[in-house]
Amino acid sequence: MTLRFEVLHTEGAARCGRVHLPHGAVDTPAFMPVGTYGTVKGMAPEELEALGAQIVLGNTFHLALRPGAEIVALHEHGLHGFMGWQRPILTDSGGFQVFSLATMRKISEEGVCFRSPVDGAEVHMSPEDSMDVQRALQSDIAMAFDDCTAFPATELQARASMERSMRWAERGYAHYYRDSPPGHLFGIVQGGMYAALRAASLEALLRRPWPGLAIGGLAVGEPEEQRLQVLEHLLPLMPTDRPRYLMGVGYPQDIVAAVLRGVDMFDCVMPTRHARNGHLFTSSGIINIRNACYQRDVGPLDPYCACSTCQRYSRAYLRHLDRCGEILGVRLGTVHNLHFYLDLMRQIRAAIATGTLAALATRIMAIPRRSLAPVA
Amino acid sequence: MTLRFEVLHTEGAARCGRVHLPHGAVDTPAFMPVGTYGTVKGMAPEELEALGAQIVLGNTFHLALRPGAEIVALHEHGLHGFMGWQRPILTDSGGFQVFSLATMRKISEEGVCFRSPVDGAEVHMSPEDSMDVQRALQSDIAMAFDDCTAFPATELQARASMERSMRWAERGYAHYYRDSPPGHLFGIVQGGMYAALRAASLEALLRRPWPGLAIGGLAVGEPEEQRLQVLEHLLPLMPTDRPRYLMGVGYPQDIVAAVLRGVDMFDCVMPTRHARNGHLFTSSGIINIRNACYQRDVGPLDPYCACSTCQRYSRAYLRHLDRCGEILGVRLGTVHNLHFYLDLMRQIRAAIATGTLAALATRIMAIPRRSLAPVA
Repeated sequence: MTLRFEVLHTEGAARCGRVHLPHGAVDTPAFMPVGTYGTVKGMAPEELEALGAQIVLGNTFHLALRPGAEIVALHEHGLHGFMGWQRPILTDSGGFQVFSLATMRKISEEGVCFRSPVDGAEVHMSPEDSMDVQRALQSDIAMAFDDCTAFPATELQARASMERSMRWAERGYAHYYRDSPPGHLFGIVQGGMYAALRAASLEALLRRPWPGLAIGGLAVGEPEEQRLQVLEHLLPLMPTDRPRYLMGVGYPQDIVAAVLRGVDMFDCVMPTRHARNGHLFTSSGIINIRNACYQRDVGPLDPYCACSTCQRYSRAYLRHLDRCGEILGVRLGTVHNLHFYLDLMRQIRAAIATGTLAALATRIMAIPRRSLAPVA
Repeated sequence: MTLRFEVLHTEGAARCGRVHLPHGAVDTPAFMPVGTYGTVKGMAPEELEALGAQIVLGNTFHLALRPGAEIVALHEHGLHGFMGWQRPILTDSGGFQVFSLATMRKISEEGVCFRSPVDGAEVHMSPEDSMDVQRALQSDIAMAFDDCTAFPATELQARASMERSMRWAERGYAHYYRDSPPGHLFGIVQGGMYAALRAASLEALLRRPWPGLAIGGLAVGEPEEQRLQVLEHLLPLMPTDRPRYLMGVGYPQDIVAAVLRGVDMFDCVMPTRHARNGHLFTSSGIINIRNACYQRDVGPLDPYCACSTCQRYSRAYLRHLDRCGEILGVRLGTVHNLHFYLDLMRQIRAAIATGTLAALATRIMAIPRRSLAPVA
C-alpha cells in the first residue's frame, strides 16, 4: 500500500503538500488534535469538522486499556465508527505512554510489562501487540512501537535505547504489513540529542520503505535550542518524498520553527489541555481567563479571532463559566484554542503557497510565549 | 405590559397554546431546560435551539452569587447576551434555593438572611432584591419571591408560610412593575398539601392581574398521590386565560399527568442531571449506561429516537465515555435526554391538537418510571 504524498509548494526547507489517506486527504503542514480516549476532550466530531480538523490522533496505550481494542473493533471502520469521526486518524504506538505513565515497568527485548494505571492489572505490550491494536483500531496512520529515550540520557543510554527501537521498528513493520493493513505505518527516528545517533537511526530505518517518518524523543523536556539543533541536523538527511512528523510539539512558535526546517505534521495536547486550565491563545499572547481583570470585561476573548466563541461570548462569561466549573467553559475554550492552532496551520500553508512564510514566521515568533500579565 | 397567551386547542382540561414573550413565542405545554449558572449544563445555546427548546430557566439565587446581577447586566439584553441565548428566559425568584441550599438562614418579614454557599459571605434577599436581580437579568418571565413551604408541614406552618408568600408577592408585584419592566411577573400559589390554603392563596393572588400563575411547593418530596390531589383541586379554580406553570416537575409521566389536568409549563433538572449520572431516558424506560451489559453493545441508545446521539453513537461508546469521565459523554447524554423531554412536549401538543392526548398519555404512563434492570 503506497502512500500518496504531494509536495505542492516549497519555501526554503518548508513544504506545503497533501497526504492522501484511506479516510481522506490531509493538507500539510498539518496539526492533529489529540483524542486520547476516542474523543478530543470536550469536542464532538462535527465541531472538529467545522474547525477544519482533517485528522485526529488516538492513543493506542489508553484505548488498549479502555475500552480495549476488541470493543472498538466491533464498530464499522474501527475507531472511526466508535468515535463517529469519518476523517483520517493517526494512532501513536503506545510507546511514549508506556514510558511516561506506566509504573512497575519491565523492559525486555521482547517488549514491555507494566501495571495498568486504570486498574493495576499486569499488561504486556510488544511491538507486535501494538501493531495488532493499531490494526484493530483501523487508523489511517499507525506508528512504530519504540523505546522512548529519556531526557537527559548519556550517549550510551541513548544508543542502546535507539538500537532497541530500531529492532522493534523492524518487527513492527513485518507484523503490520503481513497482510492487508488498514493504513500506513510510520517509522520513528530516535537517538536523543546526539546527532550521530539520530543519523544512524534514520539510516537503519531507511532499509524499509516506510511511507512516512516521524521524529520521536523530542518535546520531552529538552531546551528549545537542543531541539532545534536536532531538527537542523536531521531534517536535511530525511527523504523529501514522504511526510515528516514531529511528535508532541508544541507551542505555535515551536510549530513555525519546525515548519521552517521542513516538518509536515504535528500533534500536541497543548490547545486542549490549556483550554481546560483556562489558558487561551490569542493574537497577542496567552490569556489566563481566571484572572480577576476579566470579571467585568464584556469584550471578546480575541477581537481578531474568527472562532464561534469569540463571535458570541464575552471574557466575563468565559471567566464565569470557568469559575463555576461549567462544562461549557471547557468547550468554548477548546473550540477557541483548536481554532487558533488549525488557523495557524492554514496561514502557514497559505504563506508557503505564496512565498511569504518568512514574514508570517516573524509575526508568530513575536507573540509572547508565556501568559500575558493581567492588566493592572 | 400585557402577556398575550393564545389557547389554540383543548382536550378535556388539557390545553395547547402559545405564549408571546419579549424574546419570542413559546408553544405550550412547554418544558424549560434548567440553566442554573447561565448555561444549561453541558449544552451550547445553538444545541438547545437545534433541539427545539423555546425557553430556558435561569436561577436567580445562583446568578446573584456568581457572577452577580451587575456583571450580567453589563451585557446587552442581560442574561440573554451573557449566555448567548436570544430566545425567551424565565428566571425563578431564588426563593426555592434560599430554602433548600442556604445555611444559617434567618427569615424575617423583611426577607431572608443566609450564608452564601459559594464563599460563606452573609447575603440578604428580600422580595424587592429578587425583583431587582430579575429585572437586571432581563428575563422574559420573572417569578414572585416566595417562602417555600417545607414538606411535611402542619396546617399552621403551611398557613403562616403561605400568608408570608402572599405578602411578599404583593411587595414584589409593586416593585417589579414600578417602571418599564423587562418582562412579565408570575405569581406563585403556595399552601402545602392543604386544599383550603391553596384556594386561599390563589384568591389572594387574584387581587392583582398577574400575567401567569405558578404552582409552587410541589415536587418537594410529597407522594405522587398528594401532588395529584393538589392539582385536581387547584387547577379548576385557576383562570383559563393565562399560563399555568407547575414548578420543578418532573418525570415524563408526571408531566403528562399534569398536562391532563390543565398545566401549561414545566421545568425540571431531571433530564440534564440524570444525563450526568448516566441515566438516559428511552422509549422503553430509563437505561443506566454504566451497566456492564452495554460494554459490547454496538446498537444505538434508543433505536426509536431521532436525536443526534442515537444517530451517530453506540451504547458501547457512551458507556466508554462515561467510564473515562469524558465531557463528551455528558454532552451526548444531555442532548439525548433533552431531546426526549422536548420531543415529549411536541407529541403532547400534537396530541391535544388532534384530540388524541388520552391515547398518548396511556402510552407514556406505561413506560416504567425506574431504571430498567440490565439484561442478564
